Amino acid sequence: MTAATRGAGTNQEGVRRHNLGTLLRHVHDTGELSRAELTGRMGLNRSTIAALVSELDTLGLIEHSSPATSRRGAGRPSAGVRIREDGPYVVAVDLGVDNAVVARVGLGGKIWHRAAAPIPEDPEAWMVGATIATLVRQVVALSPADAPLLGIGLAVPGLVRRSDGLIRHAPNLNWHDVSFGSIVLAALALDVPIALGNDADLGALAEHRRGAAVAVDDLVYLSGNVGVGAGVITSGHRLEGVAGYAGEVGHLYHDPRGLPCHCGSRGCWETVVGAPAIAEALRCSPDQVPRLGEILDEMTTAPRELRSIATDLGRGLGAVVNIFNPSLVILGGYFLPLFRLCRAEVTAGLGDRALMPARDSVRLTLPGLGNDSVLLGAAEMAMEPVFTDPVASLGSAITDAPARLAG
Amino acid sequence: MTAATRGAGTNQEGVRRHNLGTLLRHVHDTGELSRAELTGRMGLNRSTIAALVSELDTLGLIEHSSPATSRRGAGRPSAGVRIREDGPYVVAVDLGVDNAVVARVGLGGKIWHRAAAPIPEDPEAWMVGATIATLVRQVVALSPADAPLLGIGLAVPGLVRRSDGLIRHAPNLNWHDVSFGSIVLAALALDVPIALGNDADLGALAEHRRGAAVAVDDLVYLSGNVGVGAGVITSGHRLEGVAGYAGEVGHLYHDPRGLPCHCGSRGCWETVVGAPAIAEALRCSPDQVPRLGEILDEMTTAPRELRSIATDLGRGLGAVVNIFNPSLVILGGYFLPLFRLCRAEVTAGLGDRALMPARDSVRLTLPGLGNDSVLLGAAEMAMEPVFTDPVASLGSAITDAPARLAG
Repeated sequence: MTAATRGAGTNQEGVRRHNLGTLLRHVHDTGELSRAELTGRMGLNRSTIAALVSELDTLGLIEHSSPATSRRGAGRPSAGVRIREDGPYVVAVDLGVDNAVVARVGLGGKIWHRAAAPIPEDPEAWMVGATIATLVRQVVALSPADAPLLGIGLAVPGLVRRSDGLIRHAPNLNWHDVSFGSIVLAALALDVPIALGNDADLGALAEHRRGAAVAVDDLVYLSGNVGVGAGVITSGHRLEGVAGYAGEVGHLYHDPRGLPCHCGSRGCWETVVGAPAIAEALRCSPDQVPRLGEILDEMTTAPRELRSIATDLGRGLGAVVNIFNPSLVILGGYFLPLFRLCRAEVTAGLGDRALMPARDSVRLTLPGLGNDSVLLGAAEMAMEPVFTDPVASLGSAITDAPARLAG
Repeated sequence: MTAATRGAGTNQEGVRRHNLGTLLRHVHDTGELSRAELTGRMGLNRSTIAALVSELDTLGLIEHSSPATSRRGAGRPSAGVRIREDGPYVVAVDLGVDNAVVARVGLGGKIWHRAAAPIPEDPEAWMVGATIATLVRQVVALSPADAPLLGIGLAVPGLVRRSDGLIRHAPNLNWHDVSFGSIVLAALALDVPIALGNDADLGALAEHRRGAAVAVDDLVYLSGNVGVGAGVITSGHRLEGVAGYAGEVGHLYHDPRGLPCHCGSRGCWETVVGAPAIAEALRCSPDQVPRLGEILDEMTTAPRELRSIATDLGRGLGAVVNIFNPSLVILGGYFLPLFRLCRAEVTAGLGDRALMPARDSVRLTLPGLGNDSVLLGAAEMAMEPVFTDPVASLGSAITDAPARLAG
């Protein structure tokens, strides 16, 4: 892309901003890069790279990682650049069915602070908005006073309309057509860019960018929480569908005589392998469901009922593998500890249902980002504009967020 | 793409051949275009277009569609071009589980001749290769003596490895790891390019190029024959997976207590809605299955058992719609007459299982190419090289195919 736009003369300012954003993304993706590496990756000459680095430095986005003497040394190829730690940040929100996690995340993907709160059953959207606003205030209060807040990224367990971020349907929250971005901004009384996305899609995004699936072009991130969803990247492209609702594998038929599902149907896969089923297998009370991750983490052997769920997890994965033919499936959420405990059962279930050539192509694995894939994916989504046009993104950032949100 | 490569100076011959192929594809897609339209679509100036048209004319690929006086008239913008009818062609093969159809197809997608033969149950690959070779000879014998045969495209009801065209698994033919392209070439004793693809993928390709889904970026072509498969185009890209096996929706779980499936599992969707189930609902004997299309075509009302299958077709479609969020689902194969007979039942079944926002985004429709979607998709696949580099493709074409295959 860079090479194709390099020579365009019609919109030089646009090309320069695009190149600024691309350079910033390279540093964001890798943590630290030398100018020689930037020259190679960008396909631009050294003096152009030096000018871009200088401007990103002036904008407060990056800093030099070599001694101060080489600070102006465009002629020294070993001089490196890295993300500026006290620079711009985003707020990421992972809204689950039973709890919400909010974090302040810097460019480069570092989580600086986090805060969490429980979400009650069948919650009112405005009350959840108020809860999230409180958590946002907590993490922003801990940020440097003048570091720009670029925006908020919010991961949702439901179908999010791509065109405007409307939550069309979040079955396990029992929400239909909720403009939740506006609700959160109203609770914060803050005019900042906010983006919403499906939780599993964002898990896939983060794992692809800096987790277990870097450089993997065909992957599925399976999110196992109260509901089950898939984020899919196929031939390097995110699977979205016409409106952004693709990947709802939790409502695959698993047993037509099965339990009713929040979606209104019956016997969906998530009724068999979702958190309520896992809790029942462990004889946990419903109020223990939010602690299910810890409970599973502490277990060293799995009871028979849990192994049976692991087999059904593998069987449903067979369908997922037949449909997407991925090279990697990443098991996130409660499926992380479940897979760690019952790897043999999951693998056997997969073998029951996957066609052999597709099964032979795939590897099941744990998230490279642990329990933070979705949260970091929400951060990546919120950062997207700064990699498209850093100047414009900084222009819409809030530079006194701690003061504004404390007031 | 054209605009980006126009100015490249490093490989002018490559750029010229690319532009030749792109111009030919525009004429192929639309049937006939004026030079003014070509200038607009290609983003090239009139004299470059005139030179490309002249070369494609010399190569015998296109002809002028306006009176002879304007034949050299680059200055007359209304002069049109169209595909030359006695020019190059491909042979397309639609290998089904119970019959094979072979056709001679010209650039522009015109089917000139076709021939068909039954395929026995659990057939030997070499015998099917011999049957197809006989059909190829029949259709090639009817072609102009010196028209170039560009290649053969073969649609297969199974998983085809993208890298080399190996049939990894065709459950309903009971084939594993069959290098069927080589078998057909051996039976023909002809060294001609041959390409293999999955039948549903090719149905989607043809419907996207010249059928019901022109300009639709998110579509599913559902192929209903003995097996069931999906060809998916998502955000304008073909869904392939890491090795080319994606889209195997026929093996979605439909009922864990259901019938055994050829894939080795049980209760797959295709055991409920595939041809054997339809035949049983109509009380047809197994030897009538190959005539199922005609039988369904002749029906005006559906018996209860058939309506029940239509409901299950819709329910499985619900999962397909939840997974891909397409704007269009095209019902091909036996699902064409089934949907025509039982539209209400299919739609109701879809409503049972699809999440509302995804259901609201989708329309179910019949193939624009009738029963020829897969066959024409195989032709499109075989033509692909001529749109990449017409000169190279003609270089590997057979220019005396009728004589060679008669010998």
